[in-house]
Amino acid sequence: MEDTEDLNIIKILIATDTHLGYMDKDPVRGNDSLNTFEEILSIAVEKKVDMLLLGGDLFHDNKPSRWTLYKTMELMREYCLGERPCFLEILSDQSVNFPSNRFGCVNYEDANYNVSIPVFVIHGNHDDPSGDGNLCALDILSVAGLLNYFGRADDIENIKVTPILLEKGTTRLALYGLGNVRDERLYRTFLNQKVQFLRPVESPDDWFNLFVIHQNRVNRGPKNYIPESFLANFFHLVVWGHEHDCFIEPEFREAGNFYISQPGSTIATSLTEGEALPKHVGLLQIRGVEFNLKKILLKTVRPFFAAEVSLSDSGIDPHSTDEVRNFLFKEVSSILSEATEARGLEEAGVKIRPLLPLIRLKVEYSGGYTPFNIARFGQHFNDKVANPNDILLFYKRRGFCDPQGG
Amino acid sequence: MEDTEDLNIIKILIATDTHLGYMDKDPVRGNDSLNTFEEILSIAVEKKVDMLLLGGDLFHDNKPSRWTLYKTMELMREYCLGERPCFLEILSDQSVNFPSNRFGCVNYEDANYNVSIPVFVIHGNHDDPSGDGNLCALDILSVAGLLNYFGRADDIENIKVTPILLEKGTTRLALYGLGNVRDERLYRTFLNQKVQFLRPVESPDDWFNLFVIHQNRVNRGPKNYIPESFLANFFHLVVWGHEHDCFIEPEFREAGNFYISQPGSTIATSLTEGEALPKHVGLLQIRGVEFNLKKILLKTVRPFFAAEVSLSDSGIDPHSTDEVRNFLFKEVSSILSEATEARGLEEAGVKIRPLLPLIRLKVEYSGGYTPFNIARFGQHFNDKVANPNDILLFYKRRGFCDPQGG
Ligand SMILES: [Mn+2]
Ligand SMILES: [Mn+2]
Ligand SMILES: [Mn+2]
Ligand SMILES: [Mn+2]
Repeated sequence: MEDTEDLNIIKILIATDTHLGYMDKDPVRGNDSLNTFEEILSIAVEKKVDMLLLGGDLFHDNKPSRWTLYKTMELMREYCLGERPCFLEILSDQSVNFPSNRFGCVNYEDANYNVSIPVFVIHGNHDDPSGDGNLCALDILSVAGLLNYFGRADDIENIKVTPILLEKGTTRLALYGLGNVRDERLYRTFLNQKVQFLRPVESPDDWFNLFVIHQNRVNRGPKNYIPESFLANFFHLVVWGHEHDCFIEPEFREAGNFYISQPGSTIATSLTEGEALPKHVGLLQIRGVEFNLKKILLKTVRPFFAAEVSLSDSGIDPHSTDEVRNFLFKEVSSILSEATEARGLEEAGVKIRPLLPLIRLKVEYSGGYTPFNIARFGQHFNDKVANPNDILLFYKRRGFCDPQGG
Repeated sequence: MEDTEDLNIIKILIATDTHLGYMDKDPVRGNDSLNTFEEILSIAVEKKVDMLLLGGDLFHDNKPSRWTLYKTMELMREYCLGERPCFLEILSDQSVNFPSNRFGCVNYEDANYNVSIPVFVIHGNHDDPSGDGNLCALDILSVAGLLNYFGRADDIENIKVTPILLEKGTTRLALYGLGNVRDERLYRTFLNQKVQFLRPVESPDDWFNLFVIHQNRVNRGPKNYIPESFLANFFHLVVWGHEHDCFIEPEFREAGNFYISQPGSTIATSLTEGEALPKHVGLLQIRGVEFNLKKILLKTVRPFFAAEVSLSDSGIDPHSTDEVRNFLFKEVSSILSEATEARGLEEAGVKIRPLLPLIRLKVEYSGGYTPFNIARFGQHFNDKVANPNDILLFYKRRGFCDPQGG
């Protein structure tokens, strides 16, 4: 499939875990999440997609700051409203797809709004509905006509996932979504066979079945994840949110008989190795029941370099703290000069904002070494590194442990 | 002037101090503020006004709950968006009128929104911009295209109030607004002659000059109010927010050479006598430099009855607490039966929601009487009164003291 204006191709930009407002009080990193969100929105406009599909954790905080909420709405109003018509015809019962929507339709069918890029969103664990009227921040954006919030299960013991049925030319898309549910509970509901994925009655095999989910994919303890095999095997593609490592290339999974694309977060919210992978969004093109996904590198993401050293390999006397400090200082300096060099190269090519990098050096210190004050150590790298206070992470090797999802 | 569709008449619904979200956790009174706001919006639609002008304290809390924010936006989307065109042409430089608006225009001129009732709002002391990015809740509604937030002074020491210049047929309106500033500071800025009200250069005398302000009007201590004489004397009408007592009938004030309309709050946020006055909004009609204001009784406002007794007038022995309690019980019961009767009459006439009344009995207890537990006393009136916990207010008469503004 070519990247054309084919009226039988549904074009969807997929992204997840934008964590808007992450560290929004930080003088250096405060705008990172919004900068990248703006990049994603501008890609959506440039690629003339039919839809932007977001896989949860749009916001980092359950109650985003007023500033973050305002800036998010400002960006969405700027990029997602406009004259360009939307070609997706909606065939399903919208009162079922969007039960809490008093206005009875997706935003681009509301005559009072001009929507050029419809945004469809599920909630993640960071921005799920909470006590206050059982609303989430996404509901505010939804009532403002800026997005279409779907996939919310009202009864966790008995979940019916009803697809949004969309048509463009000869292509028909059944879009399934399930906002985050605590993994243990959802695991149990699956075991009890109380998760149903409803299918269109008429010619169900003619639909492209896309599912977006926001759960642990990695096994983080018994029942603390959702095995791929639990999901319905009629899906063509599953977009998996919540896991921050970018494995966006669709991978065929025998267990479920579908492809999985794990876009990963668009901002590093932890300084783990997985978050240091280059971050992407995906341009998904669907024609009939075939698809193709082109990954697009995000250029506004703050550079992040993760490395690891073991002090016992260094040959330094464990009692000579000064020598250890000097050794680590050189290690970090060397990562930093690599980073600076990489940035220079990138800038020569594409226009990239000159951002201070994030650096994380994990320091294995078994063998009698003593950790020291990492904040003081970091002062040397003020104005050179975006995270001077936590460059170093001292640890002792134990068993294997998977990083947390985000 | 008749209530017609005269294309030379600018029709404005004026209201203030809606205090949305006031007591929104209260099981009985939780929806009062939103119910009345919905009534106001439906009057605006019914009267086909060109504008709804709100004089501050739209929200009760600086950070409204998610529920209140959501319901407010839902109501405004329902009542203020629509196909009906707006006839107000804007002649002033909008980037000066709305400096923080990235979209460069009033909501009804934005091609991406269909606005049928433009809402113009200044902030009050309850919903003023605060620390978080120096934004207020009104900014969220503004970026959502639901209202036009104006009258914010950036430099309190040097205030320039620039009018929004609007035209409909032969009528030209200069709309001035000043969001709340701490009274002492604004008083000083006025004294320093650093408050300027700018006027249109061309034929300044052809404009109807309307000013909306949200400050103490009552003298609550030296410099803790704004004397009417401070204001520019070219105004035709001043709409004064913040004072909750309804004195909406325009009153000519020699000191300023203008009329003042004080709409008062649309919900009682304190149980003072002033808040027990019937609550109104005003239908302002302007033709040329003449105006007329018709007050409209709000029918959804919870009935509130305020009364006062002096125990020393009762002849009861100060040591006989039971007798005092019985006496007050009878007093409250008598107010309540009056209230119930009044409600019956109202219901026979116009359709009114059957609301439990608010009752406040002020009890002057000098002369050796002892106050008792008012919450326990109120238990007798659960399910009969909306505020069982604070029906009684024991006090001792001192000097004269003005109630606070709200
Ligand atoms: Mn997550
Ligand atoms: Mn996440
Ligand atoms: Mn006020
Ligand atoms: Mn008020």
